[in-house]
Amino acid sequence: MTKWVYTFGNGTAEGTAAMKNLLGGKGANLAEMSSLGLPVPPGFTLSTEVCNAYYDSGKSYPDDLKGQVDDAVAYVETVTNKKFGDPQDPLLVSVRSGARASMPGMMDTVLNLGLNDETVEGLAKATNNPRFAYDSYRRFIAMYSDVVLGLDHHDFESIIDDHKDKLDLYEDTELTADHWKVIVEEFKAFVVDNLDEPFPQDVKDQLWGAAGAVFSSWMNARAITYRALHDIPASWGTAVNIQAMVFGNLGEDSATGVAFTRNPSTGENSFYGEFLINAQGEDVVAGIRTPQNITEAARIEAGSDKPSLENAMPEAYAELQKIYLILEKHYKDMQDIEFTIERNKLWMLQTRNGKRTTKAALKIAVDMVAEDLITKQEAVMRIDPAALDQLLHPTLDPNAPRQIIGSGLPASPGAACGEIALTSEEAERISQAGRTAILVRVETSPEDINGMIAAAGILTARGGMTSHAAVVARGMGRPCVSGAGALKIDMVGQTINANGLSLKVGDIITIDGSTGEIIKGEVATIQPELSGDFAQIMEWADEARHMRIRTNADTPRDAKTAREFGAEGIGLCRTEHMFFDEERITVMREMIIAQNGDDRRKALAKLLPMQKSDFAALFEIMSGLPVTIRLLDPPLHEFLPHGENEMVEVAKAMDVNVSTLRERVIALTEANPMLGHRGCRLAISYPEIPAMQTRAIIEAAIEAAEKTGEKVIPEIMVPLVSSKAELDAVKAHINAAAKDVMEKAGILIDYTVGTMIELPRAALRAADIAQSADFFSFGTNDLTQTTFGISRDDSAGFLENYQKLGVLEHDPFQTIDVDGVGELVEIAVQRGKGVKPDIKLGICGEHGGDPKSVDFCHKTGLDYVSCSPFRVPIARLAAAQASIHQK
Amino acid sequence: MTKWVYTFGNGTAEGTAAMKNLLGGKGANLAEMSSLGLPVPPGFTLSTEVCNAYYDSGKSYPDDLKGQVDDAVAYVETVTNKKFGDPQDPLLVSVRSGARASMPGMMDTVLNLGLNDETVEGLAKATNNPRFAYDSYRRFIAMYSDVVLGLDHHDFESIIDDHKDKLDLYEDTELTADHWKVIVEEFKAFVVDNLDEPFPQDVKDQLWGAAGAVFSSWMNARAITYRALHDIPASWGTAVNIQAMVFGNLGEDSATGVAFTRNPSTGENSFYGEFLINAQGEDVVAGIRTPQNITEAARIEAGSDKPSLENAMPEAYAELQKIYLILEKHYKDMQDIEFTIERNKLWMLQTRNGKRTTKAALKIAVDMVAEDLITKQEAVMRIDPAALDQLLHPTLDPNAPRQIIGSGLPASPGAACGEIALTSEEAERISQAGRTAILVRVETSPEDINGMIAAAGILTARGGMTSHAAVVARGMGRPCVSGAGALKIDMVGQTINANGLSLKVGDIITIDGSTGEIIKGEVATIQPELSGDFAQIMEWADEARHMRIRTNADTPRDAKTAREFGAEGIGLCRTEHMFFDEERITVMREMIIAQNGDDRRKALAKLLPMQKSDFAALFEIMSGLPVTIRLLDPPLHEFLPHGENEMVEVAKAMDVNVSTLRERVIALTEANPMLGHRGCRLAISYPEIPAMQTRAIIEAAIEAAEKTGEKVIPEIMVPLVSSKAELDAVKAHINAAAKDVMEKAGILIDYTVGTMIELPRAALRAADIAQSADFFSFGTNDLTQTTFGISRDDSAGFLENYQKLGVLEHDPFQTIDVDGVGELVEIAVQRGKGVKPDIKLGICGEHGGDPKSVDFCHKTGLDYVSCSPFRVPIARLAAAQASIHQK
Repeated sequence: MTKWVYTFGNGTAEGTAAMKNLLGGKGANLAEMSSLGLPVPPGFTLSTEVCNAYYDSGKSYPDDLKGQVDDAVAYVETVTNKKFGDPQDPLLVSVRSGARASMPGMMDTVLNLGLNDETVEGLAKATNNPRFAYDSYRRFIAMYSDVVLGLDHHDFESIIDDHKDKLDLYEDTELTADHWKVIVEEFKAFVVDNLDEPFPQDVKDQLWGAAGAVFSSWMNARAITYRALHDIPASWGTAVNIQAMVFGNLGEDSATGVAFTRNPSTGENSFYGEFLINAQGEDVVAGIRTPQNITEAARIEAGSDKPSLENAMPEAYAELQKIYLILEKHYKDMQDIEFTIERNKLWMLQTRNGKRTTKAALKIAVDMVAEDLITKQEAVMRIDPAALDQLLHPTLDPNAPRQIIGSGLPASPGAACGEIALTSEEAERISQAGRTAILVRVETSPEDINGMIAAAGILTARGGMTSHAAVVARGMGRPCVSGAGALKIDMVGQTINANGLSLKVGDIITIDGSTGEIIKGEVATIQPELSGDFAQIMEWADEARHMRIRTNADTPRDAKTAREFGAEGIGLCRTEHMFFDEERITVMREMIIAQNGDDRRKALAKLLPMQKSDFAALFEIMSGLPVTIRLLDPPLHEFLPHGENEMVEVAKAMDVNVSTLRERVIALTEANPMLGHRGCRLAISYPEIPAMQTRAIIEAAIEAAEKTGEKVIPEIMVPLVSSKAELDAVKAHINAAAKDVMEKAGILIDYTVGTMIELPRAALRAADIAQSADFFSFGTNDLTQTTFGISRDDSAGFLENYQKLGVLEHDPFQTIDVDGVGELVEIAVQRGKGVKPDIKLGICGEHGGDPKSVDFCHKTGLDYVSCSPFRVPIARLAAAQASIHQK
Repeated sequence: MTKWVYTFGNGTAEGTAAMKNLLGGKGANLAEMSSLGLPVPPGFTLSTEVCNAYYDSGKSYPDDLKGQVDDAVAYVETVTNKKFGDPQDPLLVSVRSGARASMPGMMDTVLNLGLNDETVEGLAKATNNPRFAYDSYRRFIAMYSDVVLGLDHHDFESIIDDHKDKLDLYEDTELTADHWKVIVEEFKAFVVDNLDEPFPQDVKDQLWGAAGAVFSSWMNARAITYRALHDIPASWGTAVNIQAMVFGNLGEDSATGVAFTRNPSTGENSFYGEFLINAQGEDVVAGIRTPQNITEAARIEAGSDKPSLENAMPEAYAELQKIYLILEKHYKDMQDIEFTIERNKLWMLQTRNGKRTTKAALKIAVDMVAEDLITKQEAVMRIDPAALDQLLHPTLDPNAPRQIIGSGLPASPGAACGEIALTSEEAERISQAGRTAILVRVETSPEDINGMIAAAGILTARGGMTSHAAVVARGMGRPCVSGAGALKIDMVGQTINANGLSLKVGDIITIDGSTGEIIKGEVATIQPELSGDFAQIMEWADEARHMRIRTNADTPRDAKTAREFGAEGIGLCRTEHMFFDEERITVMREMIIAQNGDDRRKALAKLLPMQKSDFAALFEIMSGLPVTIRLLDPPLHEFLPHGENEMVEVAKAMDVNVSTLRERVIALTEANPMLGHRGCRLAISYPEIPAMQTRAIIEAAIEAAEKTGEKVIPEIMVPLVSSKAELDAVKAHINAAAKDVMEKAGILIDYTVGTMIELPRAALRAADIAQSADFFSFGTNDLTQTTFGISRDDSAGFLENYQKLGVLEHDPFQTIDVDGVGELVEIAVQRGKGVKPDIKLGICGEHGGDPKSVDFCHKTGLDYVSCSPFRVPIARLAAAQASIHQK
């Protein structure tokens, strides 16, 4: 018999924190806290296996589940000494999702379950608080109808609003028990009207209905989008946690709150959280009321006049403090906790490793090493390499002039600038048009997820540091300012008003998520500071890693940035980017429309000094480190104008007949340029090109070596090779030109010649090719395109759909496809090394900066990865994690 | 010590016919004939290894070659009892190339070598024929100067022409010994003037010079082109044959000729050849004088009044007859022989397996089985499968009206029609423009090779059945009419005149290479007759082969043709071709611009009956045989108009706003359509499409099964799959639609679902994919494109250059790339069978009709190949050869 259900509570539990895969994060940690003797309301967890069984059998449950649930309910009844459905003193439960990975707000929850027309009366008597009882009942009906019965929660809110209008009241708190009683009747009538069935009165029916709805919400659109964004496989499933309700809204001696054991924004080692008196947990997270500080220190710092929990409920606070220290020591990580105080009694509802900004993650990791909680390698493993990105980008220049128009909470650090967008759709539209948007909302909800992904930054008028907007933005690394109370948003007029200044949709604003400032227009930025905790973690990472990290850089500026970020050479210099400069493109075009080798050579002779100076600059910046220069790669038509007007203009500038130019454009046009006359095919057709580029490289190397006095290590790379014969053909031109330059200069440069492995055939023929190549550099962008037969430029539409449908787990252009592309890389490594054991192996596709792909590269035995400058630290950390992980 | 030189002559030889790779075809056969005791002028062969050593060391010879050559010359001197360079009675030699495969006219030859100012006098005395001696000397100087010294032979001809003008003479035969003496002096003066060096007088220098020139000619442009066309690797090299001269031009008792042991055009078992009295061998081949028939029977048939060899030289004829019978029995194949009669003494200069038309090849093979010379399997192996193509295409309808404007010799069978082109360049231009050309020349030379490749047919005014034009055209399967004497070609006026009718360049003519007719305009054609020898060989082939042969057919007409050609089912029905029909494309476009699933379904509902009737027709034609139908493959934009004018027109026809249409066209445009939103990606994005196509297939199968009473075997094929998940996603739509149709009809159709393997990733993931696939069909066109990263549409330019440079041996789109694409096929076969041992495996790329690729498919263990209807017999034969070969 499969065990589907795991109970917890009363200082014991059937599960542990280690059983996250089976019980979900929430369920496993509730079990763990219970076993630790902490005050956890009793309950039980339906495992993720129930979820998978539910979907596998077309949304029905295993036969033996019912009996196990009945037993678990009985257990909770025993611990609480209440009965589920008891008309006198009913047991009420919450029903919550809980997946292996946290997916905040993505799935459905039902609270106060167990109320019906009878038990509500019992609750009123038992709590001696009829208003509380009917308030809970109306909340339950609305929530259950929305989540389980598929009705719209706005309709229920409208019913309440109508009542308030009639009564001329403004706040829910002004409504009495009798008002809620009437509203409950109207709610039930609304359900019958819409569904032709009464609201369910059987509490067991309620329980199964809610469990089914939570399982179903695993496949709702929001959850699917979130999983796609966070690389969570659908096959993990969610657990369902059913737990006795405790109430923070039973009066002034009750409260509910959330807290972090350290500051999740800065990482500072101080207890940090918010609470609301006489409220349910959802009220804190939703950000509808602005919450109070937990500690007195935080209250003073925030300048709040509302009492802290430390002052308001000193006993509960003392217990909470004791518990958080136990939890942090136990989990050896910063915890994100939820608690409720019911009539002065503290209950723990959740603990989990807290989400944090990258800055905080670095500080916490470094601090915990100092506190002897974790080792250096554990500290390195604690940082999400991809999240470093947040730190590496510019922040606002403090000296830049700025017109501050308002402020809010510094909810997620970093600066962002963009056009005001008042809806998610608008933010998506702006982003798709290639511009940047700031999503401005009163408060965000899970339905805004796509807009938050699309926006460069998020600004909300309501909500605290733990509001939906703040939590999600931090997770994504988007700058966010929340709770900017002075901000008025006019959806009809499509304007926002900040302290009297009106801005309309499309106007540019800047937000600083590190200070909470909102600024009109664009503000100058400065480079990030890469010292302190960041430098410490990087130092530990560099001690641990085995692979070298190089950069893809075409300009001195990129090369310099990358070297500052710790790049150990250039893995890919794309020479074509150097030709797009205005003065050069004309010469390049002369070369392209040349009718014969002589004219081509004349134009190339003009390009030679330009290329040479580019290369010399790169060699100087990278002196002592290897620099891989790829020969001209794109098809020549990319350098020519295409529109008729542009052609006329260019022809004029070039002093050629427009028909000559047009003919050449037409002759060079290709059906599939990605698979066209490019790469080494160009070098073979026009040997003058590799000859000129080699001259430029070797002459520049001689010059840079003389200037710096250091060794210059040029690696000449031949792109798009599919056979040894191709490489040999190009290599002959390279070697001839290099020999000529070196003989004339009387200086020997120790250059190497290698090849991209970016076509399936190159991977398969790696044993041949290795005979002629000093190095392989895997061009996984093109290798992915050809292995899948997918043009990256044309795939956005269907790849997104593929991920939604689960046909693809990852976008293969972001994370290397280990099963297909990866096998070709492994084949090439094995065959290449078979022939030449010391062949140098690297990767220069964009996967070089993707942590999962870096892990693959390490496993496969590559010597280095090369990535864009800003990804260098990410790759350094990912390479270290791969090394540690491998051990 | 390496043996570089092999002697022959005098009834013995150091080589044999089996040593073709070492001695070349000519050298090996000279050795063999000599060993057989046939009269062969003595000589020796420098092996192909000398050629390779020559190129490997930068055009210099091995050290020990000189001694071996000296010994061999001494051997020839002994046999002939003459001395090389002897001023009294000099030994003269010919120096000829001789590669492993025959390359007629592609490389250089030097005759009469050994003449100088002294030896010419000796020759005059020894032959008692000063005119012959000086005529030979002037021929030698001109030939040697052209071939070895790099001067232009036209300049030497001009010198002769000037003399004739001065003397008022018209024919070379009118010039006397003294005339030639003067001309010889002028020739030598011309050499000194141009080269600042005298014409070499040392006969050993002459010998080494000529040998070097022949080796060098292996790499001349003509030879490279010829090798590319005939798939001959450059690494084979050529041998050089140095042989004592015998003279057919010593008077009326001397002659020279070429003959085939059977008729090379029809295959008839009758001795067939031509000769010229008092001529050198080159005169026959060059077609300058119209030659005489060898046999009396042939003379009578041709209505010639010139005596046959049989009559003119009965003794020599009798010996020739005896020899040819010995040779045919010895080689067990039809021989192409060259001979010279010097003062009534017959000498054999060459024998080799004769080139023949495919019709002749079939007849000879069938006859030789009947004559017990060869086995049935040997007969099957004798036919070049690719050459069958000649027989399978239409010939002129004998009943069609035609305006015959002239006639010539039926030099290469088949009919061709096209624009008159007077130069090779013009023929190439016409062909590149997608039209057909007839190359019309006075006579062709090896320099015309590119024009002959480009032309649909060849017509010459001069030359016999063994002229250059005739031999090369037969080899290539191009129809050819040669020696149409009445044809006047005016290169200046760019016209031709045939019996008074003038036609200009660009006018259409038709030639019938089977009858020799030249016809004005285009003539109706009829289907080929596929019985007789062809049917016999096919029957033997079918007995021998193991693979099944299917066809790629989209229309009932193609399917019918293919079934007549022996196709055993359809391996690929491309459904998209069915949508281009005028009435359908509008509905297709409605489907494409539909904004939602509903509108799409409405349009698809209109397409359903059309598709159904197409499929029903195919099922009926192929009843009892499997029919593989591929779901819609191309990107949707292929069905939309692209030019602005066309868009306006189409929008009008569709009754939609032109801007709606334009928007859709722009939205669907792709950078690389080959790698775009196509194949199964379409089916996943628009599930309505596979659903409609499946309905059409299953409904049609039900209808056809009822109508024919035979089993209908539909195989539904999903294109462009890269993973099992994709196939599963599409399969779900297919199975749902099929189930629905079958349930409604109450009939079960035994359909299967399989996939194309046409992406590298599909090959690598074949083990997964096989779990969901009933069959794999290798789409080697796309697999080649993606494995090489080469767009077939864009590759013409650089692939041609690649072959010229030797970077690629074959065009991978014609012959499968065994090393790269082939490995992926093997991987997929092995992994697919590992999971599903009985998975059905086939190929449907164009390689399915290429004999070398068919051989690969057999070796790899495929169950069938599928090819275009006209290639079915080729594939049947190739599959048989693969089976026999494998044993």
